[in-house]
Amino acid sequence: MNAVDDALRFVRRAVRGMDGYVPGLQPGPGQTLVKLNTNENPYPPSPRVLQALRDASEKAVRLYPSPDAAPLRERAAATYGVQASQVLCGNGSDEVLAILMRTFVGEGDAIAYFKPSYSLYPVLAGIARARTVTFPLPRVARPRDMAEIPVPSPRAKVFFLTTPNSPYGVGFPTEWIARLLERFKGIVAADEAYADFAEESSLPLLAAHPRLVIVRTLSKAYSLAGMRAGLALAHEGVIREMMKVKDSYNVSRLAQITACAAMEDREHFQRTREAILATRASFSAALAQEGFTVLPSSANFLFAVPPAGMPARALYEGLLARGFLVRHFTAPVVSDGLRISIGTDDDMEALARAIAEEIRLR
Amino acid sequence: MNAVDDALRFVRRAVRGMDGYVPGLQPGPGQTLVKLNTNENPYPPSPRVLQALRDASEKAVRLYPSPDAAPLRERAAATYGVQASQVLCGNGSDEVLAILMRTFVGEGDAIAYFKPSYSLYPVLAGIARARTVTFPLPRVARPRDMAEIPVPSPRAKVFFLTTPNSPYGVGFPTEWIARLLERFKGIVAADEAYADFAEESSLPLLAAHPRLVIVRTLSKAYSLAGMRAGLALAHEGVIREMMKVKDSYNVSRLAQITACAAMEDREHFQRTREAILATRASFSAALAQEGFTVLPSSANFLFAVPPAGMPARALYEGLLARGFLVRHFTAPVVSDGLRISIGTDDDMEALARAIAEEIRLR
Repeated sequence: MNAVDDALRFVRRAVRGMDGYVPGLQPGPGQTLVKLNTNENPYPPSPRVLQALRDASEKAVRLYPSPDAAPLRERAAATYGVQASQVLCGNGSDEVLAILMRTFVGEGDAIAYFKPSYSLYPVLAGIARARTVTFPLPRVARPRDMAEIPVPSPRAKVFFLTTPNSPYGVGFPTEWIARLLERFKGIVAADEAYADFAEESSLPLLAAHPRLVIVRTLSKAYSLAGMRAGLALAHEGVIREMMKVKDSYNVSRLAQITACAAMEDREHFQRTREAILATRASFSAALAQEGFTVLPSSANFLFAVPPAGMPARALYEGLLARGFLVRHFTAPVVSDGLRISIGTDDDMEALARAIAEEIRLR
Repeated sequence: MNAVDDALRFVRRAVRGMDGYVPGLQPGPGQTLVKLNTNENPYPPSPRVLQALRDASEKAVRLYPSPDAAPLRERAAATYGVQASQVLCGNGSDEVLAILMRTFVGEGDAIAYFKPSYSLYPVLAGIARARTVTFPLPRVARPRDMAEIPVPSPRAKVFFLTTPNSPYGVGFPTEWIARLLERFKGIVAADEAYADFAEESSLPLLAAHPRLVIVRTLSKAYSLAGMRAGLALAHEGVIREMMKVKDSYNVSRLAQITACAAMEDREHFQRTREAILATRASFSAALAQEGFTVLPSSANFLFAVPPAGMPARALYEGLLARGFLVRHFTAPVVSDGLRISIGTDDDMEALARAIAEEIRLR
C-alpha cells in the first residue's frame, strides 16, 4: 500500500463515499457576468455598514471576537422581538444548520425534508451518518394552495423546512407550520433564509413552541453574503445546547459589527426590500409573457419553467454565453426549470431581452 | 412533560451531558485591562491589512466569498512552499480542527493527545462521541529535553499534537514528530498555532508524510484573531476529503482579503515576530528573578509557576485587580502556574512590576 492510500484509509467511510455540497459558481476576478445564481442582493448594504468597515479599529482585526457575538445577539433580539438568550449567531446560516445537526442528530438518526428544498441537508446528513426521509413538494399555482399541502409526520429528529422554499420560492403559511409542529413530534428547523422577502414566517409561533428553531441569514435581505452572519432563534434552553457545539469564535468581529449596523438601518432594509419585490413582480410578468410557467415567489428569486421546445439547460447555456449567470439544477425533479435571482431593474430588463432572443432563435 | 423538556429530549445525549469549551475572557467595551490571556498579538497587523479593509468594495460585503478561499490558498501555498491543492482554509484554526474531526473521527473512534494540551480536543471528542486517549506531558527544563519525551503509539484515528504546546509553550523537535509519524499509525494533526514563534515545525516532514496534517492560524503571528482565518496543510488527497465536510462559504471575503495582505508583508511579520521574541526573553528573565519557574517557550506566551507561598490563583486575582488579565487554568495538572501572553515591552514591564509588588505584599 502506498503512503497516500495508507493515509486515506483513516478517512471515515461516510466521508469517502460522499460528494461535498456544490455551491453556485462564483465568477473569478475579471469575469463580468450578471450574477443571478446565488440569490445575493443586487443593492449595496446600508451605508452604515460600509462606514462601520471604514471606522473599524485595528483591534477589530487583532483581538478575538465576542465568543457568543453578544452585541449581535442583542441587536437581533431587538429586531425579532425576542430575548438575547434566544439568539445564536453563526458563520452564515449554513453554519447554523450544521450546528443544528450536531446538536440533535447522531449516527443512525433521521432527518426529514421536502424534495426539492435546500440541497445542503443531504450533505449534512451524510457527514453525520444520519438517514433522510423525504416528501415530494408539489408545485402550486397560487400561494394559497400551499395551505393544502399534506402535513407530514415522519419519525425523525429534525424536520428541515425551507420556507420560503428554494428553489421554488413559495412560502409555507404560518398556519401550516403550526400544523407541522402539531403533527410532527421532533424539532422543526424553519430554514427562513428568504423570509425577509415573504409576507409570513414562523416567527409568531416561536414563543409557544420550544420545538421550533428558526434559521435566518444576513446574506440576502441585508446584502452581507460576504461577511458570513446567520442566526438561530429558539427557546433559550435549546439555544444553550446549540451553543455547546459551535466553534468558540465562530463569528468574526467585523461580521458582528457590520451585521449590527445593517440591522439598525430599518429604512435601507425596507427600501431595498420593496425594490426587489417590485422587480420580482415585473420580471415575473415578463417571463409569463414569454410563455414561462412561473411559480409564485415569496423570495428574492423566481423558479420558472421555459415554454415547450426550450429546454432549461439549453436556455441556461445560451444565457451564460450572453453574460447572464442563472442557476440550473440537474436533479430530475427541478431540471425542467431555472432559478433566477432578482437583480436590479436594469439587470432584469436586460435578462428579459436576452431570454426573448434565445426563444426567438430556437 | 412541559414543552421545553419535550424539546430538550431531542438533544443528543452526548451534547446534553457536556460542557462547552470555555474560551478565555474577552473584556467588554469600556473595560481597560491589559489583555494577556488569549495570546493575541500586541502589535497591529500589517498596514496593508488595514488598507485592504479601507479599500474593500461593497462587493466584498455583498457577494458570497470564494468557497475554497482560492486567493488565500494560493498565497498560503506560496508562503509555505506547497501547492494550493495542499491547503484548506478555515474560519480560524478551531474550525480546521473541527473539520479534521468530521473527516476522520466517528462515534466510538479514538483520538489521542498529551495532557496538558489545547483544551478544545476533549470538547470536539464529546461532540463526536469519540473516545480520548491521553499521555502525560512532562515539564522540561531545557528545549532539548523535549527530544527525550517517549513517543506514544496509541490505537487512535488522530493524534492531536499541540506544538508548540499550550499552555506550556515548549515545542516538539521536528525529529521527534518524525518519530511520532513512524510509531503512531494514524493521522498526526500537528496543531501549530504558535509555530511562527518557534525555531522548528513539522513543515519539513509534509512532503514525505501523507498522514501528517499541519494546522496553522493567522490569529497569532499575523494579528488577525478577529478576522477568523486558519489553515490546514496536507497531501492534496487528504485536503480533498476535508473539503467535503466544511461549510460551503466558511471563510469570509474580508478574512480572505486581509489574510492575503498580511501574508504578503513578510517584513512586518519578521519585525513584530522578533519584537515578541525579544520581549519574551526579557520578561522570562524578570520572572526568573522573582523566583518563578519558567518553562522554555517557543510561543508568544510563557507558562510560569510562582515561587513557593504565592499560589497561582491568588496571583491571578491580584493581577486582575491591578488591571492585568492573564490565564489561570483550574485543571489540576496546570493549576500551579499561569499562562501569560507576551505583550509589548511596556505591557510586560508594567506587569513585572505588578507581580513584584504582589509577591512583596504576600
